[in-house]
Amino acid sequence: MENFSTLHYLYSLIMLAGALYFYYLSRRPKGVPTYEYFLAITIPLWSGAAYLAIAFGQGVLKQSERTVYFARYLDWVVTTPLLLLALGLTAMIYVDKKNKTLLVTLVSLDVFMILTGLIADFSTGFIKYIWYTLGVIALLLILYIVWFPLRRIADTFGHKLSVHYRRCAAYLTCFWVLYPTAWLLGPSGVGLTQDMVDVAAFIILPIFSKVGFSILDLHGLRRLYK
Amino acid sequence: MENFSTLHYLYSLIMLAGALYFYYLSRRPKGVPTYEYFLAITIPLWSGAAYLAIAFGQGVLKQSERTVYFARYLDWVVTTPLLLLALGLTAMIYVDKKNKTLLVTLVSLDVFMILTGLIADFSTGFIKYIWYTLGVIALLLILYIVWFPLRRIADTFGHKLSVHYRRCAAYLTCFWVLYPTAWLLGPSGVGLTQDMVDVAAFIILPIFSKVGFSILDLHGLRRLYK
Amino acid sequence: MENFSTLHYLYSLIMLAGALYFYYLSRRPKGVPTYEYFLAITIPLWSGAAYLAIAFGQGVLKQSERTVYFARYLDWVVTTPLLLLALGLTAMIYVDKKNKTLLVTLVSLDVFMILTGLIADFSTGFIKYIWYTLGVIALLLILYIVWFPLRRIADTFGHKLSVHYRRCAAYLTCFWVLYPTAWLLGPSGVGLTQDMVDVAAFIILPIFSKVGFSILDLHGLRRLYK
Repeated sequence: MENFSTLHYLYSLIMLAGALYFYYLSRRPKGVPTYEYFLAITIPLWSGAAYLAIAFGQGVLKQSERTVYFARYLDWVVTTPLLLLALGLTAMIYVDKKNKTLLVTLVSLDVFMILTGLIADFSTGFIKYIWYTLGVIALLLILYIVWFPLRRIADTFGHKLSVHYRRCAAYLTCFWVLYPTAWLLGPSGVGLTQDMVDVAAFIILPIFSKVGFSILDLHGLRRLYK
Repeated sequence: MENFSTLHYLYSLIMLAGALYFYYLSRRPKGVPTYEYFLAITIPLWSGAAYLAIAFGQGVLKQSERTVYFARYLDWVVTTPLLLLALGLTAMIYVDKKNKTLLVTLVSLDVFMILTGLIADFSTGFIKYIWYTLGVIALLLILYIVWFPLRRIADTFGHKLSVHYRRCAAYLTCFWVLYPTAWLLGPSGVGLTQDMVDVAAFIILPIFSKVGFSILDLHGLRRLYK
Repeated sequence: MENFSTLHYLYSLIMLAGALYFYYLSRRPKGVPTYEYFLAITIPLWSGAAYLAIAFGQGVLKQSERTVYFARYLDWVVTTPLLLLALGLTAMIYVDKKNKTLLVTLVSLDVFMILTGLIADFSTGFIKYIWYTLGVIALLLILYIVWFPLRRIADTFGHKLSVHYRRCAAYLTCFWVLYPTAWLLGPSGVGLTQDMVDVAAFIILPIFSKVGFSILDLHGLRRLYK
């Protein structure tokens, strides 16, 4: 448990460093809209606070057989919609009147996906897999929106934005597909991996999918606006 | 209990069918704004998922004397604001700059109404009826907004919209008045009706007030835009 | 405990009176945008309902050594973002396209501040003070936004708005600095003050910081628009 705490503290520090770095970038925005910086700063701050709670032993429920890290869901339910908003707004970066219905659909599907994951984590037997499957369906619908309606919007604004958007979308898709895989293999799912491996996965994955994604997105946008 | 589960599964299936039907309509939108389809699809999907949790025995708290279906409130706290949004946006369908204060007021009153219902369900004695009364006051204020400020907006855009809006508002009013009545007569209130009757009421009522309302609203709007 | 209940009932009544007064003002808005009245009415209604729950003994968790008034946090998590929105919108009252990123940042920091207070209240030892410190940092960031970016916006629209905004900001700053002080001195923090003093502080403070603030803000705005 000592090791777990250290890892979680370390994660919070990395998130804080990420937020400070994006704040530093936002001081010289280079034409990129403020909301992109706001999202990049908020995501790691919230995630870092959630993991701090886990490090303190507060964001964890110990049930007889196993441990539910419910603070992870508190993290995800806020940060994953913000990541999708960042990606969606990147696709619409040159659009004056953003397509709100598309953004709201993305966020709704995402919140639904996280909630099904939470319920699945507290469920057992076949009911667990029904909730898990519903969550995966929501993820597939999200990826459909990312790769079809959103990509089409990005494509209408020239080659440079199109390439940047596809790169960000591909990056996000890779990591988001790894999450349900790690969930399924770990103690929340079938329990193939050890607790230690599970914790490591949920430390390393989010560093790439949060701070990593924002670095890729913001630097690309800053080059676009030059 | 077996029968209850079957009814709840059936409800989830009907909701799924409704969502798929509205998705099918959205493929040929006939000029009706996308957000109306988004609302019509989201409402039954969310409600169906909540009832699925009840069918699994997860959305239910068994206290010594009686059963609190808290997943119902989780359903309502999302779907009833969306239904009011659909109605409010129908009244403002031809308005470019929607009156956001009016929409936010509707949603706030509605969320307040659902929360008072939840607290009332967990209360006893005269405190239960104070919360219930506060919820009914919120409902009356909602109906006031529906029948006065919103109706006036719809009336300024010609006879056809006026008739359509009044029809939708009347439909919603009828069903929304039945809810607190069913609540009061059922086990959450004075307990006049049996559990079975209560469950049936909360299966049949929402089918009409959710999928039924959206069918009425969407088909009317599609005729308007022709 | 009897006295506590009476005080909380009294508070709810004062909040109701405040809401009715602001509704009365909204009937003759004198050019002030509707959303300012909406905020002024919603804040005391929500707060009054939360304190009613405390008066009924429902918004309180009794732990072995002490009492956590969690309904206070339910109050704050809604009313304090609305108060900041009212202040932020006052600064931008003459701006057609409000700076949404600034408003969303304010609300996010505020929700974070309230959540850290809640977690701190349920924590012990040095962990309590880490959460408390994080909340205070969020408050300092809020005050920075209030006194720098927002004040700068208000300043660009003439002397009268500038004076009015500074008055409202100073009023809010004074009371909001008193909250964490009362929290720290009271049973949620180091426990210097008695329960009775603590309760009184959390009755008197919010009357000034909620209804008092809205009176100051709305009357000032009504004079501005004359």
